[in-house]
Amino acid sequence: MNRSKGVTGPQGFRAAGIAAGIKESGALDLTLVVNDGPQDAAAGVFTTNKVKAAPVLWSQQVIQSRRLTAVVLNSGGANACTGPEGFQDTHATAEKVAEVLGTGAVDVAVCSTGLIGERLPMDKVLAGVENVAKELDSTVEAGLNAATGVMTTDSRPKQSWKASEQGWSVGGFVKGAGMLAPNMATMLSVITTDAKISGDQLDKALRQATSRTFDRLDVDGGTSTNDTVLVLASGASGVEPSSDDFVALLTEVAGDLVKQLQGDAEGVTKEISITVKQAATEAEAVLIGRTVAEDNLVKTALFGSDPNWGRIAMALGRADAEIDPDVLQIIINGVSLYRNGTRDRDRSEADLSGRDVEIVIDLNVGEAEATILTTDLSHDYVEENSAYSS
Amino acid sequence: MNRSKGVTGPQGFRAAGIAAGIKESGALDLTLVVNDGPQDAAAGVFTTNKVKAAPVLWSQQVIQSRRLTAVVLNSGGANACTGPEGFQDTHATAEKVAEVLGTGAVDVAVCSTGLIGERLPMDKVLAGVENVAKELDSTVEAGLNAATGVMTTDSRPKQSWKASEQGWSVGGFVKGAGMLAPNMATMLSVITTDAKISGDQLDKALRQATSRTFDRLDVDGGTSTNDTVLVLASGASGVEPSSDDFVALLTEVAGDLVKQLQGDAEGVTKEISITVKQAATEAEAVLIGRTVAEDNLVKTALFGSDPNWGRIAMALGRADAEIDPDVLQIIINGVSLYRNGTRDRDRSEADLSGRDVEIVIDLNVGEAEATILTTDLSHDYVEENSAYSS
Repeated sequence: MNRSKGVTGPQGFRAAGIAAGIKESGALDLTLVVNDGPQDAAAGVFTTNKVKAAPVLWSQQVIQSRRLTAVVLNSGGANACTGPEGFQDTHATAEKVAEVLGTGAVDVAVCSTGLIGERLPMDKVLAGVENVAKELDSTVEAGLNAATGVMTTDSRPKQSWKASEQGWSVGGFVKGAGMLAPNMATMLSVITTDAKISGDQLDKALRQATSRTFDRLDVDGGTSTNDTVLVLASGASGVEPSSDDFVALLTEVAGDLVKQLQGDAEGVTKEISITVKQAATEAEAVLIGRTVAEDNLVKTALFGSDPNWGRIAMALGRADAEIDPDVLQIIINGVSLYRNGTRDRDRSEADLSGRDVEIVIDLNVGEAEATILTTDLSHDYVEENSAYSS
Repeated sequence: MNRSKGVTGPQGFRAAGIAAGIKESGALDLTLVVNDGPQDAAAGVFTTNKVKAAPVLWSQQVIQSRRLTAVVLNSGGANACTGPEGFQDTHATAEKVAEVLGTGAVDVAVCSTGLIGERLPMDKVLAGVENVAKELDSTVEAGLNAATGVMTTDSRPKQSWKASEQGWSVGGFVKGAGMLAPNMATMLSVITTDAKISGDQLDKALRQATSRTFDRLDVDGGTSTNDTVLVLASGASGVEPSSDDFVALLTEVAGDLVKQLQGDAEGVTKEISITVKQAATEAEAVLIGRTVAEDNLVKTALFGSDPNWGRIAMALGRADAEIDPDVLQIIINGVSLYRNGTRDRDRSEADLSGRDVEIVIDLNVGEAEATILTTDLSHDYVEENSAYSS
C-alpha cells in the first residue's frame, strides 16, 4: 500500500490539477480526472439537500447512463443558488471538457466547491480547462495535484489507494473539511478503479460502501448543496473481482478517506467515535449515534476533555428510538461511567487528554450496532466558520 | 406593568429563595413557591427526553390531579441519572415540604437543575426546606429571591408579571441559559395566576401558550432531562376571565420569559428571529425555522455578523418540508438577498452589526407562518459549555 497514490493509482486514469485563477490566492483550483478505458463505467451518489447546486443537477443527469469519460472539478466557488445562468455555466464547462477531450458533454461530470451564491469566472474556468487537459498524467504527482485542486478550507490533500492481490486496485481523493453531513460526509470525492465491473454493479457497490463510510461521518449535520461522490471504472487491469471483494476494497478506500476527513475537519481537536451497541435496529443505532454526534453540549464538553456522560445521556434521550435509561450503559475510553440507571465508575477515571475519544453506548435492548465518527466543537471551529466567507 | 414582579405578583402566593449550601459557592440554591388559595389548580408541561430526571418523574405523577399546593426547586444538581436513590431523594424532599407546610406530598412538585448524574446533598436540602419555609413572603423581594435560587449559568434572574384590567394577573420566573430545547425552551419555569380557573382549563391554556413561546426558542437543540414549566392558580382575585383572555395574558408572560431566556443564553452575541412565511403548514414552518436555527454554520456566520444567505439556503434545504428553491426568498434585516433561484441585492447591504438579527424565509408555497427565536454560536458559548461541569 502506498498512501501517496490516489486517483491515478489504478491503471487507465490520468489526472491533473492547476491554478486557473478562480481563487484569488493563486492556489490550485481546477482538477480534471480522465478515464482512458477500455471501459467507462461510472456511478455517483449526491446530496439529499433540496437546494442543489448546478453541477449536482447536471451530474445527476449525466450519470444516469452509468458511464463517464471525465470529471472536472473546481474549488473557489460552489455554483449553487446561481439560477439558470449557473446551470448554463456548468453545461458550458462540460462542453469545453468534451471538446478538449474529443468526447460528448454527457460523458463529463462537473463538481464545484466554495462559497454559495456567486457565479464562477467562466473565462478563467474555460481557459483553465484547456490548460489542465495539457497537464493530464498518470503519475503520483498528477494525482496529488488533482487532490489539491479541490481543496477549500482543507489543510491538506486527502488521498487513498489500496490494491487487491488479484492485480486490481481502488484509489481516490476527497475534499471537505466542513459541511460534513449526516447523509453525505463530504463535499466532493472522486474514486477510481481498474477492476472490470459494469455500471450497475458499480452503482450498487458504491451505495453499499458509502452507507457504511461517508454516511457515518457527522461533523456538523450540514448536508451541503454540492456533496458528491463519483466512482469511475476503467477495466484496465483486465480482472473481474467478485462482488464481495470489490465492495470490500471500495469500502476500505472510502473508510480511509472518511477517516482523513474527520482528522482534517474544521477546528478539530478530538477525533470521536460513537459506537451504539445492542440497539433494536441498525437504523436506530445510527440515529442515536448521530443525535449524540450533533449535540453541541456533548461536543463542547469533549473539547474541554470532560467525560460528561450526563450530556451524552441527555442527548441520546432525544432520539426517536427504543431506549431504556435503566438498562443502558455509557463507556468512555474504556471506563464505564453510567450503568443500571445511575453513575458507575468515577468520571475522573476516564482520561480524555488524548486526541482520540471512544464512546460506547450499550443500549441492551437488541442486537444491532453502528459507529458514527464525529469531532468536537472548538474555538477554532467557531473562528474558521465565522470568517470563512470573507 | 412592573417588570420586577414575578411569582408573587398575583394574589395568593408566597415565595422564597435561600442559600441552603447545595452550591459550594454559597449562592442562593433553594426556592419554594406556595399557593395559599383559595384554589389550588395546577398544570405542567415536561421534557420529551426519554431520559427524565427524578423530579420530572415525580412531578409528572403528582400533577395528574391538576392540583398543587407548592413547588420546591433547587439549583446545584439536576438529580438526573441517579437511579432509584435519586427518586427517593425527590420523594423525601416533597415529604419534607408537605410536613413543613401541613399538606400532602402529592400536592408538592419538585424541580431540580444543575449537573446530571450526581446525588443531591440531602441533609442540606432537607434542612434548607425548613429554612426556606420560614422566609416565605408575598413581597417583590421574596419573588426575586425565588427567581434567583434556581439560577445556574444564568447571568441574571428572569421574571415577568402582567396584569389584566379586570383585576387578575399572571407572573412567573424562568431559569435556563443553556440546554434550551426545541420542544421546551427552558429548564425550569414557575408561573402563577390569581385568576379563577379550573385545573383542566389551566392545562389546556398552558399547552396553547407554551406551543407558541417556550416551544419556539431553539438555542442548541438540546431538550434536557429536567425541563419543566408549571402553572399554579390561586383564584384569589375572584375574577374568572374568559378562556381567550386567559390564554392571551399567559402567552404574553411566557413570551416575555422566553425573550429573556434568548437574551441570556450562554455566549449569546446575537438575538436572532427566523420567520418562515407562506409555508405549506405551520408545522413545516416550525420545522424549517428550527433546522436553520440549529445549523452551526448559520450560527457561526451570524456570530461573525456575516449575512451568509447561502448557508441559510443550504440549511433550509435539509428540512423535510415543501420547499422550492426557485420561488423562495431570503431576507435579512430587511434586505432581500436571494430570490427567483439566485442572488438578489448585494449581501453587503444587509447590516448585521447590531445585536438583533431578523431573518425572513418566504417559501411562497402556502399560507402558514411561524417564528423561531435562536442565538448565534460564539466563542463564549464554546468556552462556557466546555468548562461548565468543573
